[in-house]
Amino acid sequence: MSRSDLPIGVFDSGVGGLTVLEALRRRLPAEDLLYLGDTARVPYGTRSPDTVRRYALRVGGHLARRGVKALVVACNTATTWALETLEEAAAPLGIPVIGVIRPGVARALECSPSGRIAVIGTEGTVRGGAYGRALLGARPDATITQLPCPLFVSLAEEGWTEGPVASLVAERYLSPLRLSENPPDTLILGCTHYPLLADVIAEVLPGVRLVDSATATADAVAERLADDGLLRRSTRPGRARFLVTDNLERFQIVGERFLGVIPSPAEVVDLSDEDDRALPHRLAAGA
Amino acid sequence: MSRSDLPIGVFDSGVGGLTVLEALRRRLPAEDLLYLGDTARVPYGTRSPDTVRRYALRVGGHLARRGVKALVVACNTATTWALETLEEAAAPLGIPVIGVIRPGVARALECSPSGRIAVIGTEGTVRGGAYGRALLGARPDATITQLPCPLFVSLAEEGWTEGPVASLVAERYLSPLRLSENPPDTLILGCTHYPLLADVIAEVLPGVRLVDSATATADAVAERLADDGLLRRSTRPGRARFLVTDNLERFQIVGERFLGVIPSPAEVVDLSDEDDRALPHRLAAGA
Repeated sequence: MSRSDLPIGVFDSGVGGLTVLEALRRRLPAEDLLYLGDTARVPYGTRSPDTVRRYALRVGGHLARRGVKALVVACNTATTWALETLEEAAAPLGIPVIGVIRPGVARALECSPSGRIAVIGTEGTVRGGAYGRALLGARPDATITQLPCPLFVSLAEEGWTEGPVASLVAERYLSPLRLSENPPDTLILGCTHYPLLADVIAEVLPGVRLVDSATATADAVAERLADDGLLRRSTRPGRARFLVTDNLERFQIVGERFLGVIPSPAEVVDLSDEDDRALPHRLAAGA
Repeated sequence: MSRSDLPIGVFDSGVGGLTVLEALRRRLPAEDLLYLGDTARVPYGTRSPDTVRRYALRVGGHLARRGVKALVVACNTATTWALETLEEAAAPLGIPVIGVIRPGVARALECSPSGRIAVIGTEGTVRGGAYGRALLGARPDATITQLPCPLFVSLAEEGWTEGPVASLVAERYLSPLRLSENPPDTLILGCTHYPLLADVIAEVLPGVRLVDSATATADAVAERLADDGLLRRSTRPGRARFLVTDNLERFQIVGERFLGVIPSPAEVVDLSDEDDRALPHRLAAGA
């Protein structure tokens, strides 16, 4: 089997990364996808940076050992805290690592005439400030607002993505953006759960462009695989397989809300006995 | 130091158990309390039973090694899945283990003239059905309704315990109970977060008695320590200390919403290198 026939590894703390998986499927229909949701340790959004790095290395190491040709970090919190560590860890293995932040930032900069850009995400993503730094690095005159909206995750997982509760929560979190002196023209959905709430978010912020990192990330993955000569050449449609570290039943119930179909075939893997720094390299030990 | 001078260990997956800690403080003001919130692995409510047992044994083992005279499982999900395992594990060490379910059940049965009792909790607690079994065991003609209300946890942690969002969520979850043919006269708050939402819950269910396991559990602990001759005899007020497994900053911010004061002194402990079955006994290995 040639390297290009290996699956793309897609890693998230839980179900949220399924929005990225879906975008990859649409953009790269011939590719096999191996998804790992770290459901024994979800959510990453409230963990400390060190803990997120530790968990990410363990999951990345597991996917690397199974054999993947690229690793997509389909989780904003993991991208915020662990992307660099994962890149350094995977480089000796020749595995490119693609996070969701850079592609989302590039897309937002294309979308925003004014440079007034807001970012919403988990507590961890907002605290990490990776979006703000990347946006300001590319456009120093940009006006960036970063806002945690943790309840959006619970709403998406509960399936309450429309109706009065979702609208009221969106209004409470986001109306300050609408009412501010310099309202944003572009909003980055900096958490993979949030695209499920795009409609209620758009109602609160009429005229604001919503940037969903999932499609931007899928484009970035396609470009990177093409550059590296790793695109799969086959007429057989790609297949997706799913791994979780706990509670498969809930993953499939909640996952259906994200994918429209039950994520399958799926199985539980136990990473608890694997070394936290499972990626074989020199830098992870200092991470 | 005599055994009765040891602290009471109080264990929860995160911050919710602080409602139990507070009740213990009020009921047993002379006792020292050692709280451990497993914030690296919170929430337990969506984990599988095996995973909850594994995490609970690790935390219980850590507290046992530090030296506690009793172990209070201040988490409904951990009580549901892991109480028996912890009891078996701690018995050879002579450490009594008290969960939140039996005391809450006893209190609810005292409160309910009709025997129509509803229980709300996390997905894990409801799926486990421990409340239902215990209630029906004691009162076979009872009518039990069990209902997961996962968003209540996010609301409590976000500090949105009153106002339109909290009211609307409570209405959505609980109005079916009010409108049912046989509405309950008693509602068990089967998650340690829920007492923070008692006011909005009471608005949706006027006339229904709310049972908060925290005070019932504190009474049960007092009784057990008295029976075992383990009450601390001292005029010095008891002290509380806090351990978390991750993200101390967030524990203290969110914890203040539960306690009214910042939980302190507090420190981070790393349990990741400890054996999952850290309690030294024969049964945990088969758990």
